[in-house]
Amino acid sequence: MSFSPLIRQLIDALRILPGVGQKTAQRMALQLLERDRSGGLRLSQALATAMQGVGYCQQCRTLSEEALCNLCSDTRRDDNLLCVVEGPLDVYAVEQTGYRGRYFVLKGHLSPLDGLGPEAIGIPELLQRIEAGQFAEIILATNPTVEGEATAHYIAQSLQGKGMALTRIAHGVPLGGELELVDGGTLAHALAGRRPMLG
Amino acid sequence: MSFSPLIRQLIDALRILPGVGQKTAQRMALQLLERDRSGGLRLSQALATAMQGVGYCQQCRTLSEEALCNLCSDTRRDDNLLCVVEGPLDVYAVEQTGYRGRYFVLKGHLSPLDGLGPEAIGIPELLQRIEAGQFAEIILATNPTVEGEATAHYIAQSLQGKGMALTRIAHGVPLGGELELVDGGTLAHALAGRRPMLG
Repeated sequence: MSFSPLIRQLIDALRILPGVGQKTAQRMALQLLERDRSGGLRLSQALATAMQGVGYCQQCRTLSEEALCNLCSDTRRDDNLLCVVEGPLDVYAVEQTGYRGRYFVLKGHLSPLDGLGPEAIGIPELLQRIEAGQFAEIILATNPTVEGEATAHYIAQSLQGKGMALTRIAHGVPLGGELELVDGGTLAHALAGRRPMLG
Repeated sequence: MSFSPLIRQLIDALRILPGVGQKTAQRMALQLLERDRSGGLRLSQALATAMQGVGYCQQCRTLSEEALCNLCSDTRRDDNLLCVVEGPLDVYAVEQTGYRGRYFVLKGHLSPLDGLGPEAIGIPELLQRIEAGQFAEIILATNPTVEGEATAHYIAQSLQGKGMALTRIAHGVPLGGELELVDGGTLAHALAGRRPMLG
């Protein structure tokens, strides 16, 4: 036997959420129907409003329903620093660190095998943004993956000789970890990037 | 800093889904916005349709958009057997076993501390359903928890002397488990309920 058509449609639709498989979707659908229909309707409304209303910030290309996101329109931030990340969630991660410069959000990383070249991920817009600003330093904060590294290198080469500092976030052992659990590549980076203690 | 208002609303709304916390909701919201807006709109529509369109089967009280669910309207099923469960998901679980009798779906289990008495979970409707049918056996398949046991006992007492068999699903060691990992209470039930081998 199977669920009734409306419930089946809801279960199928819930499966588009990341990390939600058949069993989880069933549990979600029946829990909403049994216990929280008003919550389900609120979610329906929030989804429709967000999918139709949220666009991209003209300046940093993060998700925003305004032409300029609240980070770009904040006049108290440091206009000398630009942090380049792969996606909107990375902006929120970097914000947690206390960074108060500007951002530019790529659409992921270069991935030639998937047909994602510089244009597809927004590198021309990044270069325009940099031309239009007066940045002293560009911080390349793409992910520490092979593709993220390649993307950072590509951007650094495109900007070479334009007079601003180009930096990459440090690779090394994460805080709170144990050396014996850290992979060899990371540990090699940590050793190569060692810094003097006591000043 | 925080997400823009529409994104924040979407994240808050996603958190009503079971098992979804703040981080998961953020990931879901941004993934839908970045990669699958048409999927997000489809989910919005499916939610609205299901929350407004799905009601309860008049006969077995499971979730259904028809007055009679497809299990109750199926004339090929065995009208002598009634299986009583705590919720709609249990119906789908019991169906997997090959059971082909009728069902009655309670609204959970008795829970006096939460103010859930027999009326709140639909026991009067269950008794009416049994009066109206000609069941030879009522299978009490509430969960094997303290509350599920109490609910089964309450129903059994209400039906005593009405001339039909009252049975409870067996407690014992689950298939594929190892004895050393089974809790003492379950093992005690398994021993007490031992059955002759070889016929």
